[in-house]
Amino acid sequence: MARLIDQFQRLPGIGPRTAQRLALHLLNQPEDQVQQFADALLAARSQVGQCQSCFHLSADPLCEICSKPERNNGLICVVADSRDLLALERTREFKGRYHVLGGLISPMDGIGPELLHIKPLIERIAKDGITEVILALTPSVEGDTTSLYLARLIKPFCPVSRIAYGLPMGSELEYADEVTLSRALEGRRPMD
Amino acid sequence: MARLIDQFQRLPGIGPRTAQRLALHLLNQPEDQVQQFADALLAARSQVGQCQSCFHLSADPLCEICSKPERNNGLICVVADSRDLLALERTREFKGRYHVLGGLISPMDGIGPELLHIKPLIERIAKDGITEVILALTPSVEGDTTSLYLARLIKPFCPVSRIAYGLPMGSELEYADEVTLSRALEGRRPMD
Repeated sequence: MARLIDQFQRLPGIGPRTAQRLALHLLNQPEDQVQQFADALLAARSQVGQCQSCFHLSADPLCEICSKPERNNGLICVVADSRDLLALERTREFKGRYHVLGGLISPMDGIGPELLHIKPLIERIAKDGITEVILALTPSVEGDTTSLYLARLIKPFCPVSRIAYGLPMGSELEYADEVTLSRALEGRRPMD
Repeated sequence: MARLIDQFQRLPGIGPRTAQRLALHLLNQPEDQVQQFADALLAARSQVGQCQSCFHLSADPLCEICSKPERNNGLICVVADSRDLLALERTREFKGRYHVLGGLISPMDGIGPELLHIKPLIERIAKDGITEVILALTPSVEGDTTSLYLARLIKPFCPVSRIAYGLPMGSELEYADEVTLSRALEGRRPMD
């Protein structure tokens, strides 16, 4: 019992009390349901790997998005991880392909460019007829560092852009922090 | 006592309990302090008016910003109210002049363009040598409506831009709402 609680507690966002509640709930379930849970865990771990092209989570060599023929091959959107990819997919706005870096450059945490999927990205860009690479990284020191690093590598091959930093929808100008406001001013766009 | 509590309760963000606490506090103060408070209230109301040029709060005919000679006369930043102006001033990024509309166009609330300081804005733009007007309105239906309305009026005189809508600093891509992410993608900028 203590071992199960401990396992739950290692999951992100689950504290000791939630872990206990989850463990107690499982102990009250029929044995075959617990077996199904365990099977699902092992199957997911053993079957879900990375897409060979974009490094998104995938059970097949090519992920769902890379294997769709109707998506625009000329447009690559670079994200830090699969969660960011899924967030962008929810907008239904982007019709191109993705590339998942597997993190952001962070010298403080010992994460250098060689630990990310940057080399395969440059190979993709050098090979295919890419018309634009969109960097969709978080607005933070690590995101900015990674964007600048990538832009320098990609520019010899094709145009590079980054997503807009500014005021989020529905926000109030007066409550925005100074850095966001500065970026919003700096990143202003002509109206046409 | 009940009248004082009622007066406090009419202030924004102050509920019945806070109003009571504030009223009780004042009753325990020396009489001259309460007099000073009342004087400050009346003086502020009678002396603080609007700047004749930009409609920012001001005790003088021209506000602090409009009377500074070192600011760029060619650049006007349009905001909904003085609170937004103060938020932008905190960034210390903007060196031009402002224009306070006094609200946003909102047909639902019966606020049409004629109730805002739009006519004086166009007169300012038509008269002076303005090189750019920046619309800094909140990313909302009302903000967008007002921006589009103003852009159409201003364009014959000078270039119009609007501040960037996108991801706020320090935010996580995966937690951004879909509309913000769509705007961030749509508003992407070339990296150079």
